[in-house]
Amino acid sequence: MQNEDGARILSKDVEKFDGKNVLVSGRVFNIRKLGGISFILIEDRNGIIQTVWEKEADTKVGDIVEIEGVAKKDDRAAGGSEIQGQKLTVISSSEIDLPYDPSVKELNLHLTTLLDNRVVTVRHPRVKAIFALYNILLKAYEQVMREEDFTEIKTPKLLGSLTEGGANFFKVKYFDREAYLAQSPQFYKQIMVGAFERVFEIGPVFRAEPHFTTRHINEYISFDAEMGFIKNDKDVRRQLNIVFKKMFEIISEEGKDHLKFLDVTLDKVPDEIPEIKLSEAKQKIKEKYGYSVPESTDIDPEGERLICRYAKEKWGSDFVFVTHYPWKDRPFYTMPADSKQEETLGFDLLYKQMEIVTGGQRIHSYSELVKNMELKKVNPKGMEFYLETFKSGMPPHGGWAIGSERLIQLILGLSTVKEASLFPRDVKRLTP
Amino acid sequence: MQNEDGARILSKDVEKFDGKNVLVSGRVFNIRKLGGISFILIEDRNGIIQTVWEKEADTKVGDIVEIEGVAKKDDRAAGGSEIQGQKLTVISSSEIDLPYDPSVKELNLHLTTLLDNRVVTVRHPRVKAIFALYNILLKAYEQVMREEDFTEIKTPKLLGSLTEGGANFFKVKYFDREAYLAQSPQFYKQIMVGAFERVFEIGPVFRAEPHFTTRHINEYISFDAEMGFIKNDKDVRRQLNIVFKKMFEIISEEGKDHLKFLDVTLDKVPDEIPEIKLSEAKQKIKEKYGYSVPESTDIDPEGERLICRYAKEKWGSDFVFVTHYPWKDRPFYTMPADSKQEETLGFDLLYKQMEIVTGGQRIHSYSELVKNMELKKVNPKGMEFYLETFKSGMPPHGGWAIGSERLIQLILGLSTVKEASLFPRDVKRLTP
Repeated sequence: MQNEDGARILSKDVEKFDGKNVLVSGRVFNIRKLGGISFILIEDRNGIIQTVWEKEADTKVGDIVEIEGVAKKDDRAAGGSEIQGQKLTVISSSEIDLPYDPSVKELNLHLTTLLDNRVVTVRHPRVKAIFALYNILLKAYEQVMREEDFTEIKTPKLLGSLTEGGANFFKVKYFDREAYLAQSPQFYKQIMVGAFERVFEIGPVFRAEPHFTTRHINEYISFDAEMGFIKNDKDVRRQLNIVFKKMFEIISEEGKDHLKFLDVTLDKVPDEIPEIKLSEAKQKIKEKYGYSVPESTDIDPEGERLICRYAKEKWGSDFVFVTHYPWKDRPFYTMPADSKQEETLGFDLLYKQMEIVTGGQRIHSYSELVKNMELKKVNPKGMEFYLETFKSGMPPHGGWAIGSERLIQLILGLSTVKEASLFPRDVKRLTP
Repeated sequence: MQNEDGARILSKDVEKFDGKNVLVSGRVFNIRKLGGISFILIEDRNGIIQTVWEKEADTKVGDIVEIEGVAKKDDRAAGGSEIQGQKLTVISSSEIDLPYDPSVKELNLHLTTLLDNRVVTVRHPRVKAIFALYNILLKAYEQVMREEDFTEIKTPKLLGSLTEGGANFFKVKYFDREAYLAQSPQFYKQIMVGAFERVFEIGPVFRAEPHFTTRHINEYISFDAEMGFIKNDKDVRRQLNIVFKKMFEIISEEGKDHLKFLDVTLDKVPDEIPEIKLSEAKQKIKEKYGYSVPESTDIDPEGERLICRYAKEKWGSDFVFVTHYPWKDRPFYTMPADSKQEETLGFDLLYKQMEIVTGGQRIHSYSELVKNMELKKVNPKGMEFYLETFKSGMPPHGGWAIGSERLIQLILGLSTVKEASLFPRDVKRLTP
């Protein structure tokens, strides 16, 4: 923080150098002129500092500059200090017209414009606040999972066989054969329960969904976890409840400036998130709101929205666990709730209006797993290694996958998940 | 930790329940019999507890069991306590012969056997120790980078164009067109310097290297960083030096039990890692050890090994920065060291015997970047968004990419990087 050798100091430290020569550098955030005086705001990684000039300074908004001057306490300046400018050097000049004004808080750009110009729109304070909060969310998950005794793992994204089945996978040319991009780390996190009992992973997952919706992107960051020695699926939800509670506390504390800037009040995570069986929830929303979920699906977006509405009205909660998803709609590794192929111990966590977590208890017995695969007509080819895991003793276990971008979307009330991904991928978008 | 409701307690907590009824669960680690008494060791996520039985207990090594009994202090037991067994329930039985004995510290398996059977070999204490340390390495990087004011980002792995060029990329069928798997987050981390000044990313990178070596895998976890407002490439190395020093301190402290188990003494990171220009280093190893690096490459594995030997002999350091890599061998975004297309401000960090970090200062001026692309005959098609970043003002910046599995390999002296990856990928291996 010393400036004696002419080294850069940060905007937040200017107040410590009152009356001294300082050097700051950053991006020109705004320029105002008032009665022959120029006020140039400089933004660096921790904040913004005002520099004051008695003559015209040759720079413009967006330039990268270095400024020498004298630090002065001034109560009128944000942060309590400003710099009397003496020398301004443009290090790198901005040669394009920005599609926005950084000093205007709102950023009313069409989504396509926002994303096509992401390399510069990401510098707007509103967008920066979103990803500053995403950074805190990452930190929160990393920290909380360690506190809860989970071991962080990294598992392969190039697979020789599919974990989730279905049609929504991407194929990769892998030397002389084909590979698939991981739709989830499901098999691997279960395998690792056999070694570490509790594991978590933060990593990309790839879904070849050909849909254009506000809630899907084709590559996203999944916050996964898997835990062994559970008594039942409720143990998994209880643990997830704790994780959400702690994460929201960290976001609330460390993200408060960003939340304030975005005018967002963080929702409260209940000590005990209410839960309801899917079949019962569907009945309730039919009774209360006259909506029937189409027969062709277990639940649809409108159904999720109404279950959230029901939970809010009945329990005052923005979160609700929906349990006992149908056997026919859940993957083969999900623990059945009964022997009739009707319900499973698979659940979702809904937040505000939609699913943000999918979880459940898994089958841990080899023979039951094989039986369930047969009933679901799943071909075990390529999954031999996964099945081998269960021949050598596996504890009862379960876990979850949190859609991290969707979580930020819903916390902040963004209109689409694409706003919560730095460089989102959809059917038509592979750049920037 | 209460056991009144019959809930499970962990092995590490048994000592707190002296004389009380306890329930533990875990995997049978070892069974010994001595004069009519059976000693069954149970492993859970924090350790191992000994249970003592006066009659034969019907279980075997590898089983998942639940045990009820009475906790007893006993100085002869590891951890100071054991359990007098009363009831043993096998929750999940192991039905295969393990390819190893978990209670034998060494695991002398052929690499193919080790990896083919990874779903169970990962449960061996030696393998577990490697990945427990990898977990600590992840934690260390996350923590240190935040302390150093870097923002964590997640950038796409599906790309519309290549960042590094060359031939070592994987192609993906992306709906009706082609995409590539990211060889590095290079473009994106540079773009994000424009917003957050200092960013880091932990994520997979994909390299279609058709080689079989002990130092390459085709998918690995790269610890990336990029920082703005540097004065020169030395600033980047100085920051990297701090990061390594702090990471090794964390590993040394939090990983001490695992390091001890593996008989590893952690190397010391110097306060100032020595540095040498590549051209000078090549001259030195020729003079000292009579080795000439082939003309066809900038440096080869034998050259790296000898430079490390030179650094150890000359400076007593296991780490050495090699600087000024040739212009012809470094990517187009690397800052040239001169105007003669000879050397760049690209560097590597070598550790013990090989490269573990590649880094450098990047070109931040749009016109210089375009000029360098022309000189290197790089086609800008598909990179328009990247170039756009530099039209709108970018600070001088640089960064690095650490090969995380290779770092663990070298810390622990593993014979191949494949031992440091949970489920490694090579030309022939896509499973498990």
